[in-house]
Amino acid sequence: MTLKSLACAISTSLLAGCITTAGTDTHNADLIISNGQVLTINSDMEVIKDGVVVVENDKIIAVGGEELLTQYSAEMIIDANDGIVMPGMVNAHNHLPMIAFRGLGEEGISNRLFAYFFPLEAEKLSRELIYNATKLGSIELAQSGVTTYADMYYHMDEMAKATKEVGLRAVLGETVIKFPVVDAKEPYGGIEYAKGFIEEYQNDQLITPAYAPHAVYTVSKDKLQEINKLSAKYDVPVLIHVAEFPNEEKRIKDETKATSPVEYMSEIGVLDERVVLAHAIHLSENDIKLVKEADAGISYNPMANAKGATGIAPAWEMYRAGMRIGIGTDGPMSSNQVDIMRTLSYAANMQRLKHSDRTIMIPEQVIEMATLGGAKALHMEDSVGSLEVGKKADIVIVETQSANMLPSYDPYATLVYQANPSNIDTTIVNGEIVMLNREMQTVKLDEIRESVDAFEADIAEFAKELAKKAIKSKSLMD
Amino acid sequence: MTLKSLACAISTSLLAGCITTAGTDTHNADLIISNGQVLTINSDMEVIKDGVVVVENDKIIAVGGEELLTQYSAEMIIDANDGIVMPGMVNAHNHLPMIAFRGLGEEGISNRLFAYFFPLEAEKLSRELIYNATKLGSIELAQSGVTTYADMYYHMDEMAKATKEVGLRAVLGETVIKFPVVDAKEPYGGIEYAKGFIEEYQNDQLITPAYAPHAVYTVSKDKLQEINKLSAKYDVPVLIHVAEFPNEEKRIKDETKATSPVEYMSEIGVLDERVVLAHAIHLSENDIKLVKEADAGISYNPMANAKGATGIAPAWEMYRAGMRIGIGTDGPMSSNQVDIMRTLSYAANMQRLKHSDRTIMIPEQVIEMATLGGAKALHMEDSVGSLEVGKKADIVIVETQSANMLPSYDPYATLVYQANPSNIDTTIVNGEIVMLNREMQTVKLDEIRESVDAFEADIAEFAKELAKKAIKSKSLMD
Repeated sequence: MTLKSLACAISTSLLAGCITTAGTDTHNADLIISNGQVLTINSDMEVIKDGVVVVENDKIIAVGGEELLTQYSAEMIIDANDGIVMPGMVNAHNHLPMIAFRGLGEEGISNRLFAYFFPLEAEKLSRELIYNATKLGSIELAQSGVTTYADMYYHMDEMAKATKEVGLRAVLGETVIKFPVVDAKEPYGGIEYAKGFIEEYQNDQLITPAYAPHAVYTVSKDKLQEINKLSAKYDVPVLIHVAEFPNEEKRIKDETKATSPVEYMSEIGVLDERVVLAHAIHLSENDIKLVKEADAGISYNPMANAKGATGIAPAWEMYRAGMRIGIGTDGPMSSNQVDIMRTLSYAANMQRLKHSDRTIMIPEQVIEMATLGGAKALHMEDSVGSLEVGKKADIVIVETQSANMLPSYDPYATLVYQANPSNIDTTIVNGEIVMLNREMQTVKLDEIRESVDAFEADIAEFAKELAKKAIKSKSLMD
Repeated sequence: MTLKSLACAISTSLLAGCITTAGTDTHNADLIISNGQVLTINSDMEVIKDGVVVVENDKIIAVGGEELLTQYSAEMIIDANDGIVMPGMVNAHNHLPMIAFRGLGEEGISNRLFAYFFPLEAEKLSRELIYNATKLGSIELAQSGVTTYADMYYHMDEMAKATKEVGLRAVLGETVIKFPVVDAKEPYGGIEYAKGFIEEYQNDQLITPAYAPHAVYTVSKDKLQEINKLSAKYDVPVLIHVAEFPNEEKRIKDETKATSPVEYMSEIGVLDERVVLAHAIHLSENDIKLVKEADAGISYNPMANAKGATGIAPAWEMYRAGMRIGIGTDGPMSSNQVDIMRTLSYAANMQRLKHSDRTIMIPEQVIEMATLGGAKALHMEDSVGSLEVGKKADIVIVETQSANMLPSYDPYATLVYQANPSNIDTTIVNGEIVMLNREMQTVKLDEIRESVDAFEADIAEFAKELAKKAIKSKSLMD
C-alpha cells in the first residue's frame, strides 16, 4: 500500500475524501486538491477561488478552477474545505539540530555565541543527536507548512537521512570553520567532509548538498576561495552568515581594507550566483548593489535578529529592487523555533518600524517572500515556490475554520497575522503526502519521543552550569 | 449537573481524570490541578515542579507540592501531565468586537484610522454585531489562555453579556468621543450610556465597568474632567489611548501649552490611579515620572505598534521602574488578533532592538508582565495575576508534549518563544472551567458559526469599495 492510498484509507476527517472517478474522457492523475482558495504566487499573483490543483508523480500538472474536475480524475482527492491552498513555505536559513538546545541560555547572556553556543555544541553534539534532533525539527517544519529549508550545520549526511525520512526538501550546507568541530577534528575539516556528502547526494530528489563557510571572520580568505572553486566544480550552493553583526570587517582587518564583509567577498571573488547570504543586516547601498549584481540570494531573519538585538535588515529595499530574498528563522537557539509562520508578521512589522511606514510590506508581499522569495534565494525557483504547471508538487493546505482564522477576508492577511502552525492541515512535498489532516504520514512524533526525552535529560544538567559561567563572560561580539 | 461535573464526566483525554478521594482527614475542595510545573508569579517568582493548585468556589485555596494531595480531595482532579500551570494571561488593551473586521484594510492605507476604521464602523456596527463578534473574540481569548481582558468600545452591555456567556473576566470601558457613534447619536453620548452600564454591572463577579475616553485629541478638556469626577464617584477605571502617535499635543494646542498628552492630563487633573494608558509610546522621561507618580497603569502593545509603524514604547524603562505595565494586543484591526501569545515575543524583542541589548526582557520578565503586570495595569493585582492563596481561580494549563514545545528546558522561554494558542489545553476563570482539553465548555464555536458567516458576508463587499477610497485618502495622523 502506498503512502497515498494508506492516507486515503485511514482518513476519517471532513477534509479528505477518496473517490475513484475513472472517467473515460479524463486524464488519470495521482492527486487532486479541490475546493480551495488557491494562492498561485505566479507572476500575476493570481488567486483562484474554488480552485483546483492536480498532481502527477512529483509534479503539478494543472492549476485552475472547478472545470479541471471534469478533465482530471485521481485515486485521491483532498477537499480543501474552503481553506487556503498555497505553495509550501521555504525557511531560507536554519541550524535545525540546535532544536535540541532551544530554550537554553535565555537568562540574559550577552556573549551567547562564544560563551554558550560553541561550548554547548563542543560538549554535547554527536552524530546521533544531529539525526534525532533533525527528525524532531523536520516534523515541526512539516506541521508548520515548511516544505523546503536551508541549513548550515554538521554531519549533513545524518541531517539528510532524517530529513528524507520525514519527507522534506532541503538545502544542506556542511559547515566549514577554523575550529575543530564535531565532524572534523582539523580546522576546516568540513571541506573534506562535504566532498563525501556532496558526492552521495548530488542527484537526490529532495536533498541539495551545499557548502556552508560559517562567516568571513571564521573562515580564511584562502578557504573561502577554495570553497568557491569547489562549489563551481560541483555546481552546489554556498551558504554563509554575512553582516549579522556590525563591523564584521574589523575582525578581518589583516586580510583586507574592504569596508564591509560583502565588499570583501566581492573583492576576493567569492560573491556569486551560488551564494546565499544569511542575515545581511548591516549593508551599505553599495553592498546591496554588489549582492544584486552577483545575483546572490538573501535570507532575511527578522525574528531572530530582533530577539538577538542585531538589527533590522534592509529587506524592503532588497525586495523592491527585485532581489532574491526569502525569509528564515535562523536556528532554534536564535528564534527558538523552526516555524516560519511566527516570523511572517515580523517580516512585515520590522520593515514598517524601520521605515515608519505602515503601508509597506503588505501581507501579499510577505507571503510571496516566504514562498517564491525563499525559492529564489536558494536559486530553486524553477522547481518550487509557486503553484504552477511543471513545478514540484510542494503544497500546503491551511484550514480557515478555527476561531483564530475567522473572519478570513484576505487570505494573505489571514496567513501573516492570524494563522499559527496548528492551522496547517496538510503538507505535500514532491507529490508525497507528509501530513494529512494534522496527522503525520511519514514519521510520527511518538516514534521519536523517547530519544527526545533522552537528549533533553542529558543536556539539561550540563546546560545549567554552563549558563552560570556564560553570564559572567565578556562579550566578544560587541 | 454542574459545568464541572459535566466536564468531568465527558472527558476522555489523558489530561483529565475524575476521582473522588473523600478521605476523612482531607479538606474537600472543588477542583485540584496536579502534576504540573506551576509558575506561581508570586513575589519570589517561585516555580513548583510537580506542583498542585487547589480551588474552592471562585478562589485558590492552596498552592504547593504533591503533599497537598494528601491534604485535599476534590470532585474533579485535572492531571496537568507535566504541562505548565500558570495564571491566566491578561490582555490589557483591546477593541474585541473589531474582530468582525480583522484582515480588512491591509492593502497599505496610510490614513487607516480616519479613512477606513471610522467609516467602516459608522456603516456596519450594530448592537447585534457587537454581541456576536464579542462571542467569537471571547472564544479565541479563552482558547489562547487569556482570562482577563480590557476593552474600549461601544454597547458595552452587549460585550458584557457575550463575555459572561463565554465565562471570561473583563474591564469594559464605554467609549466617549466627540463624534456621533453607534450607541450615542450626540457627541460624548458615551458618558450617559456608561451611567446605565456602570450601574448595571458595578457589582458583577466578572465584569468591571469603566469609562473609555478615546484620546486627549478626541475628547475635550471639560469632558475629560467630567469623566474623571464620575470615575471617582463610581470608583471605576478610565481607559484611554495616550501617546500612540507622535505629537498628539499639537492637536490640542488651543487647549494647552503642555508638551505631551501625559503632561496635559496631569495639568488638567485627570491622570490618577484609576487611569490605564494604552500604547504610551512617545513618552519623555518626565512623562514616565508623572505616570509613575499618579500610579496609573500602562498597556504595552508591541505587536500592534510595530504593525502600525507607530514606534516602540519605553516598556523596559517602565518595567524596571516598577510601574504598573501589562501587555495588550490592541484591537483585531491593529494586530489582527486577540491572542496575547503571539505578542509575547514582541514584548521582549522590541525592547531588545530598541536598546540594542539581547540580555534584557528575558522570558521570565515577559510572562510576569503578561500576567501580574496586566493585573497591576488594571489595578486588579489583589484578585488576579498570580497563583496565590486567596486570589481568584483564573488558571491556564499549557501542554508541553507537541513538537513545537519540545524540548522544554525553561518554561518561561517555552511560553514566550515556542508556544502558540493551540498548546493552551485548559482555561479556568473564577473557578469555572471555560475550556478543558481544548474543548470549550461554555459556548462552542459551532454555535456561533452561522452568525459569523453572516456578518462576514455582509461586511466583505462594502469593505472592498471602502479600501479603494481609503488608499487615496491623505493621512491625518502624520
